[in-house]
Amino acid sequence: MSLTEKDVLAAAEAIEGEIVRTPTIESKTLSQICDAKIYLKFENQQFTASFKERGALWKLRNLSEEEKKRGVIAMSRGNHAQGVAYHAQRQGIPATIVMPVNTPTIKVSHTAKFGAQVMLEGETLVEAGAKADAVAADENLTKIHPYDDPYIIAGQGTIGLEMLKDVPELDVLVVPIGGGGLISGIALGAQHLKPDIDVYGVQADMFPSMYNVFHGEQRACGGPTIAEGIAVSSPGKLTQEIVNQRIKDVLLVDEKHIEHAIALLLNVEKTVAEGAGAAGLAAILQYPDIFKGRNVGIVLCGGNIDSRLLAYVLLRELSREGRILTVRIESQDRPGFLGQITTAIGKAGGNIIDVSHNRLVTDLPAKTADIGLTIETRDAAHADGIFDLLQQNGLKVKRVVQG
Amino acid sequence: MSLTEKDVLAAAEAIEGEIVRTPTIESKTLSQICDAKIYLKFENQQFTASFKERGALWKLRNLSEEEKKRGVIAMSRGNHAQGVAYHAQRQGIPATIVMPVNTPTIKVSHTAKFGAQVMLEGETLVEAGAKADAVAADENLTKIHPYDDPYIIAGQGTIGLEMLKDVPELDVLVVPIGGGGLISGIALGAQHLKPDIDVYGVQADMFPSMYNVFHGEQRACGGPTIAEGIAVSSPGKLTQEIVNQRIKDVLLVDEKHIEHAIALLLNVEKTVAEGAGAAGLAAILQYPDIFKGRNVGIVLCGGNIDSRLLAYVLLRELSREGRILTVRIESQDRPGFLGQITTAIGKAGGNIIDVSHNRLVTDLPAKTADIGLTIETRDAAHADGIFDLLQQNGLKVKRVVQG
Repeated sequence: MSLTEKDVLAAAEAIEGEIVRTPTIESKTLSQICDAKIYLKFENQQFTASFKERGALWKLRNLSEEEKKRGVIAMSRGNHAQGVAYHAQRQGIPATIVMPVNTPTIKVSHTAKFGAQVMLEGETLVEAGAKADAVAADENLTKIHPYDDPYIIAGQGTIGLEMLKDVPELDVLVVPIGGGGLISGIALGAQHLKPDIDVYGVQADMFPSMYNVFHGEQRACGGPTIAEGIAVSSPGKLTQEIVNQRIKDVLLVDEKHIEHAIALLLNVEKTVAEGAGAAGLAAILQYPDIFKGRNVGIVLCGGNIDSRLLAYVLLRELSREGRILTVRIESQDRPGFLGQITTAIGKAGGNIIDVSHNRLVTDLPAKTADIGLTIETRDAAHADGIFDLLQQNGLKVKRVVQG
Repeated sequence: MSLTEKDVLAAAEAIEGEIVRTPTIESKTLSQICDAKIYLKFENQQFTASFKERGALWKLRNLSEEEKKRGVIAMSRGNHAQGVAYHAQRQGIPATIVMPVNTPTIKVSHTAKFGAQVMLEGETLVEAGAKADAVAADENLTKIHPYDDPYIIAGQGTIGLEMLKDVPELDVLVVPIGGGGLISGIALGAQHLKPDIDVYGVQADMFPSMYNVFHGEQRACGGPTIAEGIAVSSPGKLTQEIVNQRIKDVLLVDEKHIEHAIALLLNVEKTVAEGAGAAGLAAILQYPDIFKGRNVGIVLCGGNIDSRLLAYVLLRELSREGRILTVRIESQDRPGFLGQITTAIGKAGGNIIDVSHNRLVTDLPAKTADIGLTIETRDAAHADGIFDLLQQNGLKVKRVVQG
């Protein structure tokens, strides 16, 4: 089947009213920061907090009555699982979702609450995928592929139509790529309304799978990227074709920029983006020259980030901003020493949140010790001031810097 | 001046297009959790991320040309400061904002970037307020009160009109109270469209100032509430009158419920609410019987929470959910002991993030030590499993529980 713009238009008509019509809104502050007009498409406002529902719904709608009766199966521990389970339930289609055994229980329960049968199988996604194939064959279930399927692609493409309808002046879109379903559909939809619009893809630099296809390279895939939603090693066949035909370039973003983008979206826009969802903004921050002065549309494709991870991202950002100061001090072995320095820090407005004290194992003389202090400060200048103060007090003090 | 519904209608007409027309949207998941239909008014989507812009803009519009030329002054280290500074700049009115000297620099710079002259004066809000009064008198500036002003109240009231226009079936509103400007305006606006709608106020139980007025009590005000936006000791005179006439009740919420509400809004709705902004949801969680089965409108009145504080709220929530397990173990003085227990925890899927070791000061025999472990777990059941495992290994182990 060759996929065309008509397929995206058909999907848009069919899924209207069953999917949240998410807004595309300019962020004045991000526009200022990025020196471009930045428009955000809030796909994290979908009911399951990701765009995956669109393709899943359109695929389910196109099953035969016989296939619907037999049921569907999908392998995913993320957004695809919830998208399939939610819309299968709404259409009365039995759904089985295979997840690796180490999937966080919160994701299992989010999927199970939509009435899906959840099978925990395999240590890895690959093992879970093999199990899903076996179950699909055994029980004659229809497998819902997360990206390499024309209906899935057409469904995701409705995002491109909506963005251009809402903001016709967009002249470049930045879209995260895992397997490539989202960007393929968006390129079809957006270029239907505006044939000369540039569409850039973004991947985490730990998983440059579509980048390799596009650039004819063989970079390795792997690593604990925060953008787990786009940590895909093997792009789809259909999606590769469309990306090669329609995409301007695939950009790789590093973890630091993704983390910074998550923190910016939270602090400025008051919205939660997962790593993959923030990858578009990360690309604009990392490659400002490409986007300078243009009307840029970014897809916040998902908001499902573990709140523990989000808390760490926020605290790491504070450390990078200089709002958490970490120092190591060589102590003097006399009563009142710790009181003296901690009092000085407190008077200067620093809030000590951690103290460590190492006397046993140290390269310092026996009568001294390493004291580690973690201090909350108002801003970078305040942190610098407190560090200077410690130095001026004649202390041997070193600053520990966040990577 | 006696304030009526007409004043709110006039404000609505005047500020339209100058203020973000924020949506009022049902949260299906929060509805399920609260056993009521929960509609959220996203005032955290205003440009300065709080409702304060509405009243500030309407007040500024009603100054005489002479007053506009001379300029305005406001005292605030929060949302009122930004609301006044932003709209004064847009109207070309000189603005002076007085903030206490210990105001976080990020709030100072957010206000200064709107062209306001920021004066850092006084150790407390009271001292800063006195300074603002003195400067206002000296320089003949018009003071913009944060709540006890008919134009401020009428401006905030436009929220009530919008909520009832968007969701006419609402039958109860829950509105945070600091000085009372927001709830007074909303009651006027909402009861214009639906005279019999119930409006409940919410205060943090550390600052029950309007609660005292309403109930004729004298409870003390003070304490480090996370809802600093409603930590107001002295309600307005105008607002007291309106609250006494129009409000059903003032509810007090505790810190635990406010924290939980912030975490829910972030995890479920993918939106950032500050403590005051989450107080409405906290009230529904703390007093479920009042709201059960009803169509409840909540005002997410602001999203300006320090990201450090937000990170701590998220981590504390994880601990309450049992996703962080903290234990103290009595160690045995033999090689391999620590390796044995940490290996067992790792095999069970627990991720150790902190180890402390106390041999010097302990009530245990000299040959033993206190070992403290902080362990990330998948969920409460997983945490229980790991705790049981440690006990079954014959260890003397105690669980440390989050308050």
